[in-house]
Amino acid sequence: MNALAYARFYQNKFLQELQEFLRIPSVSTQPDHQPDVERAAAWLCEQLSAAGFPRADVMPTAGHPVVYAEWMGAGSDAPTVLIYGHYDVQPPDPMDEWKTPPFEPTIVGDDVFARGASDDKGQMYVHVKAVEALAKTNGSLPVNVKCIFEGEEECGSPSLTPFVHEHIDLLDADVALISDTHILGEDTPSIVYGLRGIVYVEVEVTGPDHDLHSGTYGGAVQNPINALCGMIAQLHDEDGRIAIPGFYDQVRDLSAEERQALAKAPFDRQSWLQESGVKTDWGEQGYTIVERASARPTLDVNGMWGGYIQPGAKTVLPSRAFAKISMRLVPDQDPEEIAQLAADYLKQIAPPTVSVKVRELHGGDGAIVRRDSPAMQAAFQAYTEVFGREPVFVREGGSIPVVALFQQALDIETVLMGFGLPDDRLHSPNEKFHLPNFYRGIETSIRFMEVLGE
Amino acid sequence: MNALAYARFYQNKFLQELQEFLRIPSVSTQPDHQPDVERAAAWLCEQLSAAGFPRADVMPTAGHPVVYAEWMGAGSDAPTVLIYGHYDVQPPDPMDEWKTPPFEPTIVGDDVFARGASDDKGQMYVHVKAVEALAKTNGSLPVNVKCIFEGEEECGSPSLTPFVHEHIDLLDADVALISDTHILGEDTPSIVYGLRGIVYVEVEVTGPDHDLHSGTYGGAVQNPINALCGMIAQLHDEDGRIAIPGFYDQVRDLSAEERQALAKAPFDRQSWLQESGVKTDWGEQGYTIVERASARPTLDVNGMWGGYIQPGAKTVLPSRAFAKISMRLVPDQDPEEIAQLAADYLKQIAPPTVSVKVRELHGGDGAIVRRDSPAMQAAFQAYTEVFGREPVFVREGGSIPVVALFQQALDIETVLMGFGLPDDRLHSPNEKFHLPNFYRGIETSIRFMEVLGE
Repeated sequence: MNALAYARFYQNKFLQELQEFLRIPSVSTQPDHQPDVERAAAWLCEQLSAAGFPRADVMPTAGHPVVYAEWMGAGSDAPTVLIYGHYDVQPPDPMDEWKTPPFEPTIVGDDVFARGASDDKGQMYVHVKAVEALAKTNGSLPVNVKCIFEGEEECGSPSLTPFVHEHIDLLDADVALISDTHILGEDTPSIVYGLRGIVYVEVEVTGPDHDLHSGTYGGAVQNPINALCGMIAQLHDEDGRIAIPGFYDQVRDLSAEERQALAKAPFDRQSWLQESGVKTDWGEQGYTIVERASARPTLDVNGMWGGYIQPGAKTVLPSRAFAKISMRLVPDQDPEEIAQLAADYLKQIAPPTVSVKVRELHGGDGAIVRRDSPAMQAAFQAYTEVFGREPVFVREGGSIPVVALFQQALDIETVLMGFGLPDDRLHSPNEKFHLPNFYRGIETSIRFMEVLGE
Repeated sequence: MNALAYARFYQNKFLQELQEFLRIPSVSTQPDHQPDVERAAAWLCEQLSAAGFPRADVMPTAGHPVVYAEWMGAGSDAPTVLIYGHYDVQPPDPMDEWKTPPFEPTIVGDDVFARGASDDKGQMYVHVKAVEALAKTNGSLPVNVKCIFEGEEECGSPSLTPFVHEHIDLLDADVALISDTHILGEDTPSIVYGLRGIVYVEVEVTGPDHDLHSGTYGGAVQNPINALCGMIAQLHDEDGRIAIPGFYDQVRDLSAEERQALAKAPFDRQSWLQESGVKTDWGEQGYTIVERASARPTLDVNGMWGGYIQPGAKTVLPSRAFAKISMRLVPDQDPEEIAQLAADYLKQIAPPTVSVKVRELHGGDGAIVRRDSPAMQAAFQAYTEVFGREPVFVREGGSIPVVALFQQALDIETVLMGFGLPDDRLHSPNEKFHLPNFYRGIETSIRFMEVLGE
């Protein structure tokens, strides 16, 4: 039995293991889930040993641990692949919109529904099983493999940068491999070569120093919620462009060649509207939907709150209002600089009646990787064989700051070998992973390593 | 011992009873406090019987009950006073800003701190004790007294209007007496002759039909929080005026005489800034702080929420955003009409990418009462005697829709005999009632009834 046959034979076992993984609510951003995050790391470490990695360790960081594993038996002439993934997940709320419990993985048709199913437990586990298939059948792998699985991706990977810098030698590799993106469709494989960066800030606007009665003070005291709304309304102009002065100064323009290439990827507006569930699209004038959602920078309020938010009516003029705002960045915008520009602008446009605090929660650079490297070509061939169709090259709107980190710290490029689908509902209720992609992912990973090791 | 002496002798007993009353968390707007609201009604009914009312009943409504009591022994030639108050309270949150537990009344210096201390349990209880003092010392009252104490004031009194209309004969009276306002200062009594009305709406803005990943869709899907902020930003113009078309059409202008009279009330800007805890005032151009906060209509966002509002970062592009918005109205604005104008305007300015629902939570008319009626003059004399200083006539920004209801349904005017202070923190954490005002309030109420009955 070769590796591909092994992978097909054990599909059911692999699925059961994935369900075990998905049952652990490893929500990294919420302190009360700390034990679950640790449990997920320990579980993953055991699985790596069982899969055939002679070394598998839970390595502490200042935050949640990194799970590291390696198989170096292919020799120093063979290429070394550094597989990155994350075993932490987004918070599940709003809870009442889940049709099945977020941490009780439920199979409906060809999908498994659970928080983290696609982002990223299901996708990272693909490679663990590919290594197992190769190791158990051939007794060896065609390439050297190192794994670095972190537990803080969903809270901005604060410990990853120091970890990578402290372990430059340990992580030495020829190419990185990440599965944390989606392909265009079940039968339309694609390879992401561009990612957006991110900067995430929290804004606090304070008006009166305590909550007031809106009848007694309303009309003579500026309401901080109204003030914050006025500020947020000034973050975009009428053409959907971000109004922060200097925001676009460093943006690397899309070349005509790249715009043409992006336009070639299959895109159906009706399907997109249905997937996103909106009446119509929106955004920066002069760019297509695909460009706006992947190759242009953006700004979104991810959360906002202030005053009385329980059922019924309370006539309060609140002391404070808050907003969580993230900006997606493109090369060559610098997250620190953009955070500063945003903070300066918010303070500048705030009315004199309120005070404003802006706190940066996290940030990460965007990245563009070469489309013609040997590893990219190996990925191209693996997809073509397993999916029966050549993949298209696309850019993605999400942020995987580790790609820029690996480029800068380890001087390696990353192959983004995604197996998610556009309707996987990442970060949303009813997240799912398409099981045929789980199985094809394992085969694609096997073929990638085989082709790269040839 | 006369009634005033009785009131002074039993101050400590009265305070202990008030603390008992304040311990009952009768939060009318939260369904899980329903039993507490009922307990408060039963407790109050017992106290009214004990104070000397031969009739005291808990009368059911479609919502929380009305507590009704009467003493009609003064004869048909004597005037009848209808005392209104409310035994329900605002929700206590934000809980973590209370220095003492909101439902464990705590005496610090001359103040008792508790939710409802001033609004309205402490103030309404003043009259129960005034009646007790008169009944226990004289064996009779100088006027006929009816009490109507409701349990839904803090959620917009939905059952009060039908109750009053169903009991027109029962509630027949010559004048209404309400203590649910504040005087200008401990030694500066005042009588409120004008109140603002209110209309309270909840706005729901829906963008995508489910939460989306802000990386994957941000830039091409309009964010409903950003959209709602843009709409709220358009509710005021640059001069602090409300931008809803038609909003000011029915507003009764302030006469030059009234503006002069309002300007005479003592007002210290520094004290006001300190009480409200703001850096500077704000509001409609062309009006003073006093006018803006009491005699001009206003609009405030009382609560707003959408997206991820827990600690940490979540990169969600949410499906929905919400705002609770109240508008304070002046004569002759109609709440229903204003609610409709606001809803129309919000829908009109909403971007085409989102859908908007506007739900009216409650509304009530504003009111202006004559300053020269016999009851107003009796109140004037009572305040002057007890506080040692003539009261000034003022307008207040808060809303007591029952004043308009009594005017319309019972054809009677209301004397607003307030005993609160401007820094009582109504609807805010650390609400308090100044105990000297509790005791002087009882004496003022006694003298009011005595003077009116002469």
